[in-house]
Amino acid sequence: MAAVGWLWCFIGVLLLNWRWGLSSSSLNFRGNTFTMALFADLHFGEAASEEWGPLQDVKSQRVMSFVLDAEKPDLVIFLGDILTANNMVCHNATNYWTQAISATLQRNISWASVFGNHDDMSFEWPVDWFGVAGIPGEDNIDHYFRGTTRAELMAHDMSFGASFSVKGSRSLWPSVSNYAMQIFSQNSTNLEEPLLILYFLDSGGGSYPELISARQISWFHEVASELNPDQRVPELAFWHIPTQGYVDIAPPPGSRIESPCVGSINLETVAPQVVELGFMELLSERRSMKAAFVGHNHGLDWCCPTKSAGMMYLCFARHTGYGGYGTWTRGARIIEQLNELDIWDKIHSGGVNGVYNV
Amino acid sequence: MAAVGWLWCFIGVLLLNWRWGLSSSSLNFRGNTFTMALFADLHFGEAASEEWGPLQDVKSQRVMSFVLDAEKPDLVIFLGDILTANNMVCHNATNYWTQAISATLQRNISWASVFGNHDDMSFEWPVDWFGVAGIPGEDNIDHYFRGTTRAELMAHDMSFGASFSVKGSRSLWPSVSNYAMQIFSQNSTNLEEPLLILYFLDSGGGSYPELISARQISWFHEVASELNPDQRVPELAFWHIPTQGYVDIAPPPGSRIESPCVGSINLETVAPQVVELGFMELLSERRSMKAAFVGHNHGLDWCCPTKSAGMMYLCFARHTGYGGYGTWTRGARIIEQLNELDIWDKIHSGGVNGVYNV
Repeated sequence: MAAVGWLWCFIGVLLLNWRWGLSSSSLNFRGNTFTMALFADLHFGEAASEEWGPLQDVKSQRVMSFVLDAEKPDLVIFLGDILTANNMVCHNATNYWTQAISATLQRNISWASVFGNHDDMSFEWPVDWFGVAGIPGEDNIDHYFRGTTRAELMAHDMSFGASFSVKGSRSLWPSVSNYAMQIFSQNSTNLEEPLLILYFLDSGGGSYPELISARQISWFHEVASELNPDQRVPELAFWHIPTQGYVDIAPPPGSRIESPCVGSINLETVAPQVVELGFMELLSERRSMKAAFVGHNHGLDWCCPTKSAGMMYLCFARHTGYGGYGTWTRGARIIEQLNELDIWDKIHSGGVNGVYNV
Repeated sequence: MAAVGWLWCFIGVLLLNWRWGLSSSSLNFRGNTFTMALFADLHFGEAASEEWGPLQDVKSQRVMSFVLDAEKPDLVIFLGDILTANNMVCHNATNYWTQAISATLQRNISWASVFGNHDDMSFEWPVDWFGVAGIPGEDNIDHYFRGTTRAELMAHDMSFGASFSVKGSRSLWPSVSNYAMQIFSQNSTNLEEPLLILYFLDSGGGSYPELISARQISWFHEVASELNPDQRVPELAFWHIPTQGYVDIAPPPGSRIESPCVGSINLETVAPQVVELGFMELLSERRSMKAAFVGHNHGLDWCCPTKSAGMMYLCFARHTGYGGYGTWTRGARIIEQLNELDIWDKIHSGGVNGVYNV
């Protein structure tokens, strides 16, 4: 368990503005803490037409249930690649989305979602299906299906009362999951200053290139300036695909993760977005921006500080799903925020008791 | 001009069967000849949002108009990659399809179409559009467009009276442009034996892998056995992406095209389908199968015989459109069928007078 001391401040005026794609209701600290569980790269629906596909989704459910019962988080963050849409021969992928959120939903825990590169990826026809055996289950699939768009998936996510996800401004299209979220002290309302601000960004991929656009950067700059003009409220940011900034500070792949980094898996090269348009510079200039969290690289779960003075941490989540490449022990990154004191960053692996390690 | 002598026979019983996806009305020889013009790789709509895109489509129209006026063909065959769908930010690509067929339509000439790999390809977002300038013409484009499917494009093509295209059997899905077409003597009807049978196949690509499936092969076998059981009627086959059979007989790229091959451009390596499931073997076993025609490789226009006893020719068409890679002189392959005698295979280039060579 690694502790990163981040001092909090509490003075300021709250500016709740719907223009910023803010979540509708408010989330509050529970006593002195606010705990977030990151579920990254669940890849529901992978190999949907093969026997092991549905089985692996059952295993992913077990990981999530284990983590939720052990940690009792106040907020779950689905950090992209919730689906493997490129394996789905159907018009409507929302059934798989419902499966992915169900463990959280059943426990009445709030959540927020961002998109990864697989969530709206086009179906990839296996060449085998064009041999003599033909297309498996062909009678049960729609001809000329076109998959499910980000907008449709987000509308589905938002249809649940426990979802804090927001379909971001149309001006940021084709990126969709762009929004901010404020977390308040136990007894305060959303008319007061929050204790924590979370930013969610759509880092693209699938139906369009893997990047955070200039317009998204400009949107982030506006929102952050408005919500937190004096940079007093601590902030965290969440998106799916690592930026060039992660490449710049990555420990050599395969090397042991050493202080000031934390984590336990460092077995891949960072696979960054196709272009970096200034987002990381903007983030690292904000002294209130404490850490960013991404998924995408299943073989990485480290958390390292940038070289900037602000000591922002760049973190990978942990591969939570049995869908997606790699057999590293599944788990979930837990962020435990201590009111007026620290953020504790822990890595909880569903594999600690060996149950989930296959 | 190269002549390939192919003896014709005329005895037999016509079996007109809708199961085979046969065209509805009939086409007839004009006196002793039947002339076909192949328009391959037109790539309409390429760079649709840039100035030079629409301009190049105008040039492609001029090539087609020139060829149609010079050759006065009885049938135009659109040999795939009629569109560059991956450049189109719109729900409906049929306007571009209408542009592509318009020169043929205006002259009241019949046509038949097959799909190439670009006709239903997903839109490829340029990374540039995510910079500060944003998406050009964003206000005029549909958000969350999904492109136009093969089925929709084929329905549009078939809505014109002069189209002999057929949406093939649903059992061959996701391939669509699979059908046969019979050409009759000048005064005969479609109740008599044809003088020529044409087969059209969808060789995939775009929304699914580039191949001719086992089911398509089996469909072809059934149709050909039923329509031409004694293999007396000469046959030709048309699809977009070359098969492995083309690779096997290709003259070394860059080498001069020599007898028994004909043609004038040999400046690329053949880019074949991803797998060969027995289609070429089946074709070459039919002594009635005289030649096959493909597009796809813009830098090839040769026509070479297979090594099989039947002397089937495998031919490339000529890159007709200004859309698509390569600046080799545009043109169209012309197949001139002489009743009871020969098929003449000519290459007519729109560039003979230098007008179209840019």
